[in-house]
Amino acid sequence: METAVLKLHCEDVKGIVYNVSRFVYENGGNIINAEQHAETIDNRFFMRVYFDCTTLACTREEFQQGLAALASRFNMETHLSFSERHKRMAVMVSRYDHCLYDLLLRHQYGEINADFALIVSNHRTLEPIAGNFNIPFFYVPVTQETKESAEKEILDLFDTHHVDFVVLARYMQILGPAITSRYQHRIINVHHGLLPAFKGARPYHQAYEHGVKTIGATSHYATADLDMGPIIEQQTVRVDHTHNVETLVAMGRDIERNVLSAAVKAHADDRIMVYRRRTIVFR
Amino acid sequence: METAVLKLHCEDVKGIVYNVSRFVYENGGNIINAEQHAETIDNRFFMRVYFDCTTLACTREEFQQGLAALASRFNMETHLSFSERHKRMAVMVSRYDHCLYDLLLRHQYGEINADFALIVSNHRTLEPIAGNFNIPFFYVPVTQETKESAEKEILDLFDTHHVDFVVLARYMQILGPAITSRYQHRIINVHHGLLPAFKGARPYHQAYEHGVKTIGATSHYATADLDMGPIIEQQTVRVDHTHNVETLVAMGRDIERNVLSAAVKAHADDRIMVYRRRTIVFR
Amino acid sequence: METAVLKLHCEDVKGIVYNVSRFVYENGGNIINAEQHAETIDNRFFMRVYFDCTTLACTREEFQQGLAALASRFNMETHLSFSERHKRMAVMVSRYDHCLYDLLLRHQYGEINADFALIVSNHRTLEPIAGNFNIPFFYVPVTQETKESAEKEILDLFDTHHVDFVVLARYMQILGPAITSRYQHRIINVHHGLLPAFKGARPYHQAYEHGVKTIGATSHYATADLDMGPIIEQQTVRVDHTHNVETLVAMGRDIERNVLSAAVKAHADDRIMVYRRRTIVFR
Amino acid sequence: METAVLKLHCEDVKGIVYNVSRFVYENGGNIINAEQHAETIDNRFFMRVYFDCTTLACTREEFQQGLAALASRFNMETHLSFSERHKRMAVMVSRYDHCLYDLLLRHQYGEINADFALIVSNHRTLEPIAGNFNIPFFYVPVTQETKESAEKEILDLFDTHHVDFVVLARYMQILGPAITSRYQHRIINVHHGLLPAFKGARPYHQAYEHGVKTIGATSHYATADLDMGPIIEQQTVRVDHTHNVETLVAMGRDIERNVLSAAVKAHADDRIMVYRRRTIVFR
Repeated sequence: METAVLKLHCEDVKGIVYNVSRFVYENGGNIINAEQHAETIDNRFFMRVYFDCTTLACTREEFQQGLAALASRFNMETHLSFSERHKRMAVMVSRYDHCLYDLLLRHQYGEINADFALIVSNHRTLEPIAGNFNIPFFYVPVTQETKESAEKEILDLFDTHHVDFVVLARYMQILGPAITSRYQHRIINVHHGLLPAFKGARPYHQAYEHGVKTIGATSHYATADLDMGPIIEQQTVRVDHTHNVETLVAMGRDIERNVLSAAVKAHADDRIMVYRRRTIVFR
Repeated sequence: METAVLKLHCEDVKGIVYNVSRFVYENGGNIINAEQHAETIDNRFFMRVYFDCTTLACTREEFQQGLAALASRFNMETHLSFSERHKRMAVMVSRYDHCLYDLLLRHQYGEINADFALIVSNHRTLEPIAGNFNIPFFYVPVTQETKESAEKEILDLFDTHHVDFVVLARYMQILGPAITSRYQHRIINVHHGLLPAFKGARPYHQAYEHGVKTIGATSHYATADLDMGPIIEQQTVRVDHTHNVETLVAMGRDIERNVLSAAVKAHADDRIMVYRRRTIVFR
Repeated sequence: METAVLKLHCEDVKGIVYNVSRFVYENGGNIINAEQHAETIDNRFFMRVYFDCTTLACTREEFQQGLAALASRFNMETHLSFSERHKRMAVMVSRYDHCLYDLLLRHQYGEINADFALIVSNHRTLEPIAGNFNIPFFYVPVTQETKESAEKEILDLFDTHHVDFVVLARYMQILGPAITSRYQHRIINVHHGLLPAFKGARPYHQAYEHGVKTIGATSHYATADLDMGPIIEQQTVRVDHTHNVETLVAMGRDIERNVLSAAVKAHADDRIMVYRRRTIVFR
Repeated sequence: METAVLKLHCEDVKGIVYNVSRFVYENGGNIINAEQHAETIDNRFFMRVYFDCTTLACTREEFQQGLAALASRFNMETHLSFSERHKRMAVMVSRYDHCLYDLLLRHQYGEINADFALIVSNHRTLEPIAGNFNIPFFYVPVTQETKESAEKEILDLFDTHHVDFVVLARYMQILGPAITSRYQHRIINVHHGLLPAFKGARPYHQAYEHGVKTIGATSHYATADLDMGPIIEQQTVRVDHTHNVETLVAMGRDIERNVLSAAVKAHADDRIMVYRRRTIVFR
């Protein structure tokens, strides 16, 4: 079965569900699932339609044109993708392997609806893992002096490997604006703290110092503003006085891999929409 | 704003979302949220449409007639309710008050979209609470000999008080078929075990004996088959060797009240559909 | 059975468990449970001993004197309490009743090892609840001008009613230093955010604005530094884009009452020790 | 630092904590953590003492002899282990790799206090993984006819590789009594259901059919009685009508690996005691 996902948002006026479902129906699509969300503050309506397009009565291009007309009528922003075109992801890592392994294993089990294009790292440490899983690996060291050229090299690698989106699987470098602006809302980062708490460096140390009884991890779209991009997923785990910083780090690994994988799955399925600084993550 | 909820299910064929949304649109309704579910095993399609009917272009009766025609065309089972008609619930209790209080307090906070019609109990213990919250209270003792007449009395009370659905808030009697058949899928029970495990009496003792590390509570529609009706909500809590039966009972109270209230809220909102022995609980 | 709790901390040197257990044993006590904690950073050892003192071979006073000698030898800070002396708590509320009800109901079920001394409020709203549960209620209005005299009145009430500790069950006033210093580590507050995130006013609004996917509540000892006292308990609940601020407030009520009750139970049982800004909460 | 763990249980009489701590102290050990548990039903007392034995004033053998004398006096069952002797584990797998990877990665991160002795499988599928992590791999096919000889071969492998305990990481064969009796309370299995519910085959299918709203996974000691051995750890995850059997299987993988690793860590640390059909899992 070939399927497609149509995401759109516009002012919340009467008849949108009807008009969108009619458009799909009249072009030969069959809606499997349609979800809506009304953002109460701004009177804004969001919709995601997942439909069977095996029996589409027109070409993909004609469907796109028809959609453009509909979008124009309701002043919609739309995004359409077809399942025959798998997204390609670049994974960036440093030395920690737990998030990388989690992505690799979930991909093998068919949980992630995207393909590994390449792995980029500022260390050689994880190269053997890439080899075991047959993923191209590129070592791009970064120093304060070489950062600009390194990022250019990375962008070239992304181009050559047709990268659709980027996953920072505990990549310990801050990306510059050349990358974050080019891949807006297409770079997924994991932060090992429950944002907006414990931004920046050493969040588990901060958590320990504050004596919190819950720690968390956050996946979010990376933006130029460090650790402030739209949050996609968060998970927490209870801690107590018996846990020192090392234990927090170990407990944190479990939720880091979970929140990152959840975000990657959602992004790969075109289930995320960003509005202002919030995300709508359809199911 | 006046709203309505339309629930329906039918064979999963092309165009249902389109035809249902067209029906609502052409009669002047405005869809706020529409949800679908396809039950993979039986090729069965379920839908719940929540719509603004303030500007309905026809009478409620005409809308019902139009819906009947649509239902006939797709061989649908449908259920329609309007927000101006609040559901009325009967709450049955014995001696434990934690579930009753939880319902009363959530109702006061506006979380439950239904009204208390009356409280029925086989004990006088909780009568003062009913008084404090101004709910009619009826003491209907039940013994093995009087069970039939007691249940008739209860059914008469339900009729007099226009009861739409029944909540068994730790009511320690098994209802007979006269009541369960009359209120099919309209009696919500809470069981203090994670069904289907630990059915019947003293589930926390069973859990303790088995040395489980997780206990749970379950809310479900009561049927003639004890503790086997369709499950609506379940919650669990971690336990360990330090917890004896009394502690399990205390920990269980927290999740009992939660699962019961969650089920009552969902039922009151017309968010539940039952198919075979499973429930679809829309959000 | 009469029991006692001995809490102590000192430098982590050899033989503390042995010497403390010998002291209890030689005075006729029988240890039911002993817990230890070593704070790695400061080489500090914490211990809580819960023991049967029914068959104590000396008077309470002699036991206290013997303990003082032991404490002196190891330079310990100690705290001893006997179960025959129930702690008395003052509960302060404003208009929200969910935390108050939770405390009252748990107390009725025997979950809280302390007695209600009185309820103090800056509103008359919850007076009927106090009446239903037969707890003395005092209305002490607070304005910017009367704050000092009001707090004096409150402290007098605490004295008259022999208050051991204070529970702020969504009391919407900031306590002045006269109260916080007098009841150091004996005032338990609930904050409706996951501290240290979302301090201060309207934490659910802050959470919504940040688009977080997890909200939380925190119970902690109130200090002069607003929302910065040692954290006792935290709980979280997952949220998503469908939840607006009102829904967050409703979901938050469930975890607010849980974290507050958990803290009150722990304090009443003498299970909490404070060290620097962290708490050790024994089981 | 060299450490040791002493586990014991006996009738709950006065002075056990004192006498045990004295024994450790007088032999030059220093207690880091001591935990107790009183099983209320049987008047049975359990204790685990974790102590620094770097400065032990006697040989290991003398310590063992002294312990035997103490045990005899209180009619104790005791178990003593020293940290210089790492436990060696055999991991048995079939085709699923998620539990195996989880163990391997946690071991690399230093979370598991034991060594991989070997991996045994009835399939060659996971042999490359063993190779990547440098663990000896043995392929021992099992058919109904060869089961007895295969199990003998496995026991010989365990002997040759000095196996202390066995981990069934989704090993899809039922072990015969030759193995289960030889390694009593030393074989850790993971079952992909929340035991005692959904024993035996295809638990996720059973869960789906019952329409449960929570699924779970269980790690337990394998005994001759299938899926009925003492439970060590359980975790649950919420599910709803949108999850079909395949999704339940995927969601289940996450909790399967968690509960198995938690059990292996606890066993490796000598934190588990079994009494009747229940486990005491110290922290």
